[in-house]
Amino acid sequence: MSGKVWLVGAGPGDPELLTLKAVRALSGAQVVLLDDLVNPQLLEHCPAARVVRVGKRGGCRSTPQDFIQRLMLRYARQGFSVVRLKGGDPCIFGRGGEEAAWLEARGIACELVNGITAGLAAATSCGIPLTLRGISRGVSLVTAHTQDDSEPNWPALAQAGTTLVVYMGVARLAEVRDGLLAGGMRRSMPVAMIENASLPQQRECRSSLGAMLDDASAFGLRSPAILVIGEVAAEAALELARSA
Amino acid sequence: MSGKVWLVGAGPGDPELLTLKAVRALSGAQVVLLDDLVNPQLLEHCPAARVVRVGKRGGCRSTPQDFIQRLMLRYARQGFSVVRLKGGDPCIFGRGGEEAAWLEARGIACELVNGITAGLAAATSCGIPLTLRGISRGVSLVTAHTQDDSEPNWPALAQAGTTLVVYMGVARLAEVRDGLLAGGMRRSMPVAMIENASLPQQRECRSSLGAMLDDASAFGLRSPAILVIGEVAAEAALELARSA
Repeated sequence: MSGKVWLVGAGPGDPELLTLKAVRALSGAQVVLLDDLVNPQLLEHCPAARVVRVGKRGGCRSTPQDFIQRLMLRYARQGFSVVRLKGGDPCIFGRGGEEAAWLEARGIACELVNGITAGLAAATSCGIPLTLRGISRGVSLVTAHTQDDSEPNWPALAQAGTTLVVYMGVARLAEVRDGLLAGGMRRSMPVAMIENASLPQQRECRSSLGAMLDDASAFGLRSPAILVIGEVAAEAALELARSA
Repeated sequence: MSGKVWLVGAGPGDPELLTLKAVRALSGAQVVLLDDLVNPQLLEHCPAARVVRVGKRGGCRSTPQDFIQRLMLRYARQGFSVVRLKGGDPCIFGRGGEEAAWLEARGIACELVNGITAGLAAATSCGIPLTLRGISRGVSLVTAHTQDDSEPNWPALAQAGTTLVVYMGVARLAEVRDGLLAGGMRRSMPVAMIENASLPQQRECRSSLGAMLDDASAFGLRSPAILVIGEVAAEAALELARSA
């Protein structure tokens, strides 16, 4: 009889931002495939499991997607309970949907377990609420790095008026800035750039749309990092609420 | 000496989608303020705490925001460790930012604890990945219900090309549909409407932008519900991934 694959969101890094369901999946796992952006401290929840390190860090040498999928399939067919532990949430830039569909088409039972996505934790740990009454009534999460080299519709996102959270944007700051300016976003729009969100080594750099390239360079911003772009990223955004 | 207030995301309903950090906050709480959209099962983590039921369910009789804030302040000034347990995440349509700012301005230490937002859990529990390579490279979370009766920029959101997740949309389906059509979204765009996300009584209705009013009415859709609008909401969206 085949085993089961759990596609589990490990959250943003802080080991306490794991869900109880993720802990249960890990506790019962015989094999754990660990992404390289996942905090290895989480392995304390699966002391008896065989751990296989996989990962696809942008631009670095890494385990190809196809190989990882076949590995999950092989272990599941051997009857094991397999956890694939992915950074953030498996269905937000995590390819969880694809992997579940691929496995299910091959007769393997799959379960997706949500996690706290990095963009949310990054903002919260800097004191930035992604939505704020009277200032931002929504939030858009987008990735600047795409496999087919196409771009998100930056001008439309600028016009949508939601807080914008950009994943994998460090290498594409110029495209992000130019696209948002083309959509009419003002150069003074506040931007927060957050490295290693929710971890002890988290660093944040406050800037503006117009100045973010220079500021990121002076700051030495490195991947993985999250950009939060919008009124809520201003240090003073909460003054309104404070004085209410 | 003043106590501390924890503004804690309770997640979407499933008690297992609570984070370890939320469990720690609850375990140490002396007073817990419970929102009425939060699953009362979570109180198992704080058996010794005094529980105060508060809430602001849309359209219903409920505890005013101002009163809740003063209650938190009073308990914190009495030296208690206070948890305010909010549905989903405190910073996504949860007013966590405002409340933290208000309390901090009055000298009260505050900590925000992220939770799984309902829109994410709703999609995942229906097998809908919010992002899908080649189909959706981002997701926008918006609320259809605003205090000032203004509308999100639906046409721009339609053009952004991200998966759209609408909170509190049941009473405003016509505005959502008309706004998205005005932005050029096609009438056949898939829509999933999900009631009681992540709970045993979850119900889902699949429809399309053009048909969603009739379908919601026939289905008897009720608040709280989440709308997921985009290619990923098609039953067949994962075929692409399955066959890859």
